[in-house]
Amino acid sequence: MPEDTTASRLRLAGLCFLLQIFTIILFAVFVRYSPESSPGACSQQLNCSWKKQDLGSQHPRSRDVHLQVLLGFGLLVAFLGRYGLGSVAISILIVAFAIQWAVLIQGFLYFFLNGKIYVGAESMVSADFCTASVLISTGAVLGRVNPVQMLLLTLLGVTLFSINEYILLGLMEISDSGGSLTVHTFGAYFGLMVSRILHRPHVGKRKEPQDTGQQADVFSVVGTIYLWIFWPSFTSATTVRNDAEPWVVLNTYFSLAASTLATFVLLPVLYEESTLRMVQIQDATLAGVAVMGMAGEMLVTPFGALIAGFLAGLIPPLGFRFLTPVLRSRLKTQDTCGVHNVHGLPGLLGTLLGTLLGALATADAYGGRLELVFPLVAQGSRTAATQALWQLWALPVTLLLASLGGCLTGAVLNMKGLRSPPDTSDPENTVLREAAEEGCDRRASRKEPSTSTLV
Amino acid sequence: MPEDTTASRLRLAGLCFLLQIFTIILFAVFVRYSPESSPGACSQQLNCSWKKQDLGSQHPRSRDVHLQVLLGFGLLVAFLGRYGLGSVAISILIVAFAIQWAVLIQGFLYFFLNGKIYVGAESMVSADFCTASVLISTGAVLGRVNPVQMLLLTLLGVTLFSINEYILLGLMEISDSGGSLTVHTFGAYFGLMVSRILHRPHVGKRKEPQDTGQQADVFSVVGTIYLWIFWPSFTSATTVRNDAEPWVVLNTYFSLAASTLATFVLLPVLYEESTLRMVQIQDATLAGVAVMGMAGEMLVTPFGALIAGFLAGLIPPLGFRFLTPVLRSRLKTQDTCGVHNVHGLPGLLGTLLGTLLGALATADAYGGRLELVFPLVAQGSRTAATQALWQLWALPVTLLLASLGGCLTGAVLNMKGLRSPPDTSDPENTVLREAAEEGCDRRASRKEPSTSTLV
Amino acid sequence: MPEDTTASRLRLAGLCFLLQIFTIILFAVFVRYSPESSPGACSQQLNCSWKKQDLGSQHPRSRDVHLQVLLGFGLLVAFLGRYGLGSVAISILIVAFAIQWAVLIQGFLYFFLNGKIYVGAESMVSADFCTASVLISTGAVLGRVNPVQMLLLTLLGVTLFSINEYILLGLMEISDSGGSLTVHTFGAYFGLMVSRILHRPHVGKRKEPQDTGQQADVFSVVGTIYLWIFWPSFTSATTVRNDAEPWVVLNTYFSLAASTLATFVLLPVLYEESTLRMVQIQDATLAGVAVMGMAGEMLVTPFGALIAGFLAGLIPPLGFRFLTPVLRSRLKTQDTCGVHNVHGLPGLLGTLLGTLLGALATADAYGGRLELVFPLVAQGSRTAATQALWQLWALPVTLLLASLGGCLTGAVLNMKGLRSPPDTSDPENTVLREAAEEGCDRRASRKEPSTSTLV
Repeated sequence: MPEDTTASRLRLAGLCFLLQIFTIILFAVFVRYSPESSPGACSQQLNCSWKKQDLGSQHPRSRDVHLQVLLGFGLLVAFLGRYGLGSVAISILIVAFAIQWAVLIQGFLYFFLNGKIYVGAESMVSADFCTASVLISTGAVLGRVNPVQMLLLTLLGVTLFSINEYILLGLMEISDSGGSLTVHTFGAYFGLMVSRILHRPHVGKRKEPQDTGQQADVFSVVGTIYLWIFWPSFTSATTVRNDAEPWVVLNTYFSLAASTLATFVLLPVLYEESTLRMVQIQDATLAGVAVMGMAGEMLVTPFGALIAGFLAGLIPPLGFRFLTPVLRSRLKTQDTCGVHNVHGLPGLLGTLLGTLLGALATADAYGGRLELVFPLVAQGSRTAATQALWQLWALPVTLLLASLGGCLTGAVLNMKGLRSPPDTSDPENTVLREAAEEGCDRRASRKEPSTSTLV
Repeated sequence: MPEDTTASRLRLAGLCFLLQIFTIILFAVFVRYSPESSPGACSQQLNCSWKKQDLGSQHPRSRDVHLQVLLGFGLLVAFLGRYGLGSVAISILIVAFAIQWAVLIQGFLYFFLNGKIYVGAESMVSADFCTASVLISTGAVLGRVNPVQMLLLTLLGVTLFSINEYILLGLMEISDSGGSLTVHTFGAYFGLMVSRILHRPHVGKRKEPQDTGQQADVFSVVGTIYLWIFWPSFTSATTVRNDAEPWVVLNTYFSLAASTLATFVLLPVLYEESTLRMVQIQDATLAGVAVMGMAGEMLVTPFGALIAGFLAGLIPPLGFRFLTPVLRSRLKTQDTCGVHNVHGLPGLLGTLLGTLLGALATADAYGGRLELVFPLVAQGSRTAATQALWQLWALPVTLLLASLGGCLTGAVLNMKGLRSPPDTSDPENTVLREAAEEGCDRRASRKEPSTSTLV
Repeated sequence: MPEDTTASRLRLAGLCFLLQIFTIILFAVFVRYSPESSPGACSQQLNCSWKKQDLGSQHPRSRDVHLQVLLGFGLLVAFLGRYGLGSVAISILIVAFAIQWAVLIQGFLYFFLNGKIYVGAESMVSADFCTASVLISTGAVLGRVNPVQMLLLTLLGVTLFSINEYILLGLMEISDSGGSLTVHTFGAYFGLMVSRILHRPHVGKRKEPQDTGQQADVFSVVGTIYLWIFWPSFTSATTVRNDAEPWVVLNTYFSLAASTLATFVLLPVLYEESTLRMVQIQDATLAGVAVMGMAGEMLVTPFGALIAGFLAGLIPPLGFRFLTPVLRSRLKTQDTCGVHNVHGLPGLLGTLLGTLLGALATADAYGGRLELVFPLVAQGSRTAATQALWQLWALPVTLLLASLGGCLTGAVLNMKGLRSPPDTSDPENTVLREAAEEGCDRRASRKEPSTSTLV
């Protein structure tokens, strides 16, 4: 039905227009530049109240953040790379809207003063983290929602992510600079819960995924290399002081190296065909960074980072082989891009590791760094054990919020007006839907290792 | 005629050789490293006389510029990305020659002292800007000139760009740090005028553009992401002081986000087929940065940046739909890559915006930043209104120079010896020409939206 | 024989597992974070004893190195790009293992104190250089070794590279900040010698290389652009003081520009078909950076950099046309990716240039920079001529070590258990081997320019 296609196109255009106008109005009312003042004064009032203070060398601070903004988008590359060419247009739409919305929502939570939101480079960094989490969530439902639903998912996902992050970092004051918990775990389980709610039986019998071939692999290569280049610096920029050895950079590199080797250990054992697809190596890379999100800036030690990375690298192959089929058939949760294996479980592992290291933290081992990683422990208002308990408590809080939020979001997306009518889902109105659809199916094909040799 | 092919190949080789030898000789005679001295002394004599001085924190200056050089080439990526695989080899040739030539020409204008040109990191940044402008110009004529003509276009384009930039920044002392006027507007109209002069009736009846398919889209994706990552920092590096909030970074990001949404608003309305090609999103991104070139470092406010970006994002779809066909049929100006819609008009809009903001500039609103953005206003030798008038005056000056220069350049390229003989343009000697030709035709196909669904 | 395939797959998995466990144990015993101390104290004890001291502005040091780590991987991109999609998985495996192993080996040589290796950002940079060299070596044998052999090549190559580098930089105290000699020359001749030892007559009669088409060219484009963007900063980061003009950045850019033009001069003359493949331009780019490895930080002058780059850019086309066939037929050394033309000879040229410039170095011309480039000359313990002699002596030392090491490594890889059995090399167990094989054959096809027009 061509009219239907037209209607769906115009609905997307209209929603984009409305959201943009709405955002512009909110920006006009609330958002101002962060005041032009000495860094010291700025930090007293606003942003630095919820972040670790920078002792000693404060002046190159804004340079750091400046770089961070630059690198933040580097990480988006990695995600875009994962989803293939078809879904990139939608991904960029999500990024463009999520950044604006995250600046608003996080501004209300963190940077609100005298009725105004004061945005600076730090706002953009927070918005980047938030956008990354939403992109992870979309990985679970890619191919089964239309762009209008995607935008609503982004709207709600950004809001819920920000609330969860505020509870964890602002109220519970846990340490999670690289987002094992806030970004990876939240993003994965939120997306999975939305996917569960959106489950419709007949959708599973869709046509066989087409072979997206080398095109997808090009993106995997570019994405993998971007992760290697940018992520260690990205996670470090919030935490590294100028004159300290960058533990988090070293830890992340070691973790990446070990997780890659782990993939080469496990894949030949698990699968018959003796070739590796780049996307599997990218999975290992993502798992390797997810596990270092929380523990990276702690005293994980070089060999500890290798071990953690190795374990994290084992998760995706095992998960795709044994867990994803169960998830799909028993729990009726389709996971298009396998975010559970790549972000969810490694994020959980990273959280447990961070908790363990929190419990072991002593002023002797950390030195001046303790002030940065665990400010409350350094000030004496918490013992290391208490801090570790809080870190552990953050896990069920995140899972609860992700699940409840996912249910709510799924229910909204399931509303009648938004769903693409099932009967027309085949040939006519699928062009824009296809765009999102061809993304991750190549991953789905890995669930059945019997599908013959992937050339 | 194979001999003809051989002749054309050898002509290219010979021209490259001559130009390189010529450049080496000029370098040997004139070019020296910038003297090894304290930044203060250096700025008195040479470069800093025409650039805004860096008050207060001068020492991280060379780091900034160092980074800038790095990022300058990031922007080239974006342009390369636009033109598709076939034209990349020629683009890199243009870049390689334009940088050397720009160092010389701009050296004579800016860094000339005691008969020597003193090159430093700043020279490379200026050369980058210049190269970007020439790449924009080539976008208008891609596919209708051979590599020899391209090199001559580069030779003349670099020279004219540098003269125009010197008049605007050095003599009229306007503020255009990101190049809305000097880079985007000049590049677009210079290229369009060359294209007009080169117009030959029968060329329009060329074969239908082949479908370049996904290959081109890969470059669009990479180019779009590079723009998001690198451009904000690129435009900011010349202007941001160390301890100030980077307005230009924030403004550019907001503009990028809004222009992307604008494309999603307009394209479904304008075109029947319900899919988006990545190249259209890249157009929006380019328009979003072009509009922030001049205004980015001014007090455009966050919501102002959103509005400007939104308007800029509307230009390319409207332009390709309504303006390009008129341009081609009535004005006999073919615009292979649509640089008028993507660089020319957004650059004009950015210039008008910059003029408006210049008129509104007050010492209260800008604080210490006024010294950086409008040094003459801060020193009291101009009022804000006078500065705005100068900014506005720069527009016709640029358009005039671009048009006259384009006529001249077109006339040179039209000389008999340089043109590829029209009768052999079909099968034999086209291999090297094809290389440049297959670049942007996919864009040309958008001019007729009736060309069915672009899968 | 499918069992054979299974055995070869499991052998790879087992070797990866063993190496990873072994590395983890060594890390646990030896590797610690670099002590948390003032930069001054750190430099007395450990790393700064073998590197040029940073006089004057010491505090942004760790930032520099931090960036360097980031950029180090940028250079890997370039190499990955060269080898095509098929070999990327193996390349990433090599990178992942080589980094861990290089941290250990170089740690024992440079950062060993009281029985512990103290790793910091600088260790990662050294490991990057080492990995780059090993990737160059693999380029010579790609397609004729299986992954297990690749891992052993990496194990031995890293060890030998580190020993050679230690002799050159630590004992002979020559200046080679960008690795003309240590990275490019060593990597190329080590790989070539391994290739010579692995030569088996019947392998030469392999099937014709398939046309890898545009996919490979996409990587060439991305790789070329990365080299332009990242390499100049990469080589500069170790040497540039904060307040000095970055000679090495300027030199490398000029060299890159001139070598690109040189390729456009020579290729139309040498080859019949009038099109350029991107991979040929990338060769020019690589040669242009290899020649500036040693001389880049010296007083090469702008026009000297242009001349050196131009000469370096002439080497790859000439080498592929005249030298590679001789190498293959007479010297029985197959060079899959042409590393001799792209890294070996330009590296030699760069070494000779560095020697010449070392002999000409005077305190007048270099100023305070002499302390950085030639610390022994600045301190008066060596004359410039003596330093130049040492620089020249380093060349035969490197060639000797590369040859002997290559023989040894080749002999190890030739052991019976490791070789893929020759009879099964055709259809069955080739899947993982193919992965590495399809990499560089497109280059091999250039050896016979008569193979018709490369579209």
